[in-house]
Amino acid sequence: MFNQLGVIGCGLMGGSFALALKQAGLVDRVVGYSKSPSTLEKARRMGVIDVAAESALLAVSGADIVLIAVPVAATERTLLAIRHMVTPATLFMDVGSTKLDVVNAAKRVLKDRAQSFVPAHPIAGKEQAGIDHAEAKLYAGRQVILTPTSQTDPVMLQKATDVWAAIGCQVLKMRPENHDAAFAAVSHLPHLLAFAYFSAVANQPAGKDFLQLAGPGFRDFTRIAASAPHVWRDVLIANRDEVIRQSALFRSVLDEFETAMRDGNAEALEERIRQISQARGRWHLSGPKTTGSSGSR
Amino acid sequence: MFNQLGVIGCGLMGGSFALALKQAGLVDRVVGYSKSPSTLEKARRMGVIDVAAESALLAVSGADIVLIAVPVAATERTLLAIRHMVTPATLFMDVGSTKLDVVNAAKRVLKDRAQSFVPAHPIAGKEQAGIDHAEAKLYAGRQVILTPTSQTDPVMLQKATDVWAAIGCQVLKMRPENHDAAFAAVSHLPHLLAFAYFSAVANQPAGKDFLQLAGPGFRDFTRIAASAPHVWRDVLIANRDEVIRQSALFRSVLDEFETAMRDGNAEALEERIRQISQARGRWHLSGPKTTGSSGSR
Repeated sequence: MFNQLGVIGCGLMGGSFALALKQAGLVDRVVGYSKSPSTLEKARRMGVIDVAAESALLAVSGADIVLIAVPVAATERTLLAIRHMVTPATLFMDVGSTKLDVVNAAKRVLKDRAQSFVPAHPIAGKEQAGIDHAEAKLYAGRQVILTPTSQTDPVMLQKATDVWAAIGCQVLKMRPENHDAAFAAVSHLPHLLAFAYFSAVANQPAGKDFLQLAGPGFRDFTRIAASAPHVWRDVLIANRDEVIRQSALFRSVLDEFETAMRDGNAEALEERIRQISQARGRWHLSGPKTTGSSGSR
Repeated sequence: MFNQLGVIGCGLMGGSFALALKQAGLVDRVVGYSKSPSTLEKARRMGVIDVAAESALLAVSGADIVLIAVPVAATERTLLAIRHMVTPATLFMDVGSTKLDVVNAAKRVLKDRAQSFVPAHPIAGKEQAGIDHAEAKLYAGRQVILTPTSQTDPVMLQKATDVWAAIGCQVLKMRPENHDAAFAAVSHLPHLLAFAYFSAVANQPAGKDFLQLAGPGFRDFTRIAASAPHVWRDVLIANRDEVIRQSALFRSVLDEFETAMRDGNAEALEERIRQISQARGRWHLSGPKTTGSSGSR
């Protein structure tokens, strides 16, 4: 399907994409670049990439598919570094958890070359970041959202759709604004709440003792609080307007709960929890097939 | 170890305790009572109990160990119903997630008979409530907190310790006040936040579409939002002072996060998330052994 994949950023996401394409026989050669020389060398030794490039630009050279897998705030400077090699013949994608900022960066930097750039967000990951945790199956059974713009070449959009489908993803298309609103609600806010909650519990005087008593509910509720700092720093800033809007909705429901608790209004609490419990009981993870794996995001 | 177990409340917790004692060969006969005749009949047909009693009092009659496994707000009226059969020779325990309210109810109702009552809170469960989900292994590998009072007979406390240990629990002893403060932090607040969060996401205009896009992080973060309404209604009211105090701590950390997001303070956000992510990465579920099961609470 492709001759050469260029991966910029050899972490969990980039490394797993390279492994998935290799395992599926979709690419002959992978050239990688990482700003960390030790990561780059490790990716090569692990066989995730075949060739270590000395720059992002050199990782793009000769590639017919390029994946930019860096924290979202680094997307613009990555595009700046490679813009002279962005041609209509090569498919460019990213994996950022926010899309409007990425689309705007692409418009600013690539201008009329943005036609071959297909912004992508695979709903996959795990809280252990880095090349050590990369695996070919990371994306299998997951959804991937593509957010094409008016400039996006339909041929490239189809190629992007095909490659994600070929590694086991269900491919959806959305407007970047709608993507960011939805993921503020279902992903970015939960991360923010898990960070704030874990910090509040752990940093109180008896926090250490309390944590010893925490059970399986706590374990699952806080799993995403172990997520990668450089990834979530960028996501929470890039999508802050939507995340803060979702947080306000959450706070107002929390206020209602606390009012019912203060009033000792058992009936209202039970009715409310019953609706939530039933709706959550009916909810199931979407995707092309059910998997038992435990990714993040 | 015991001749006859009386179980009042044949749901997930009571049913699983009966099954665990039977499987461990710790009891000869189980007499159960449920206010729901259909639940009681099902418990008997499933072999969870051997005899269905027509009242709580009759479930206590002849027992040398009694487990009260009802929502915490029903503890006082259960004790009222059985108080004439509460003797120093029989071990009485509950399984409530809050302890100060239970201890106070026992003092009020049992007065000087409270010596054989050992308040207990096993840190186990799952979000599917009811006798259908009862299992002998529910408590294996979990912690159980006993909150004896000044009245508690040390012999009974030892018996209680032994029976929980015999079904695979790590037994801890705490003051009821300390128990309630700790579990407000590590269990009750996460349930409240998960309820409020799920409700806020699901009940907004685009909520249904958003939920289709949610991934594994959302799945784990909201698992406890499917918990039993009648259990959590009572817990959130019984322990409201501590829960609201913990919620205030959480809200103030959330405020700090949102301020850093609004200010675009990437450095502060990253540093904060790094501390949290590392601390959460180091945290592990406590218990006598590691289990792969996925209980609740």
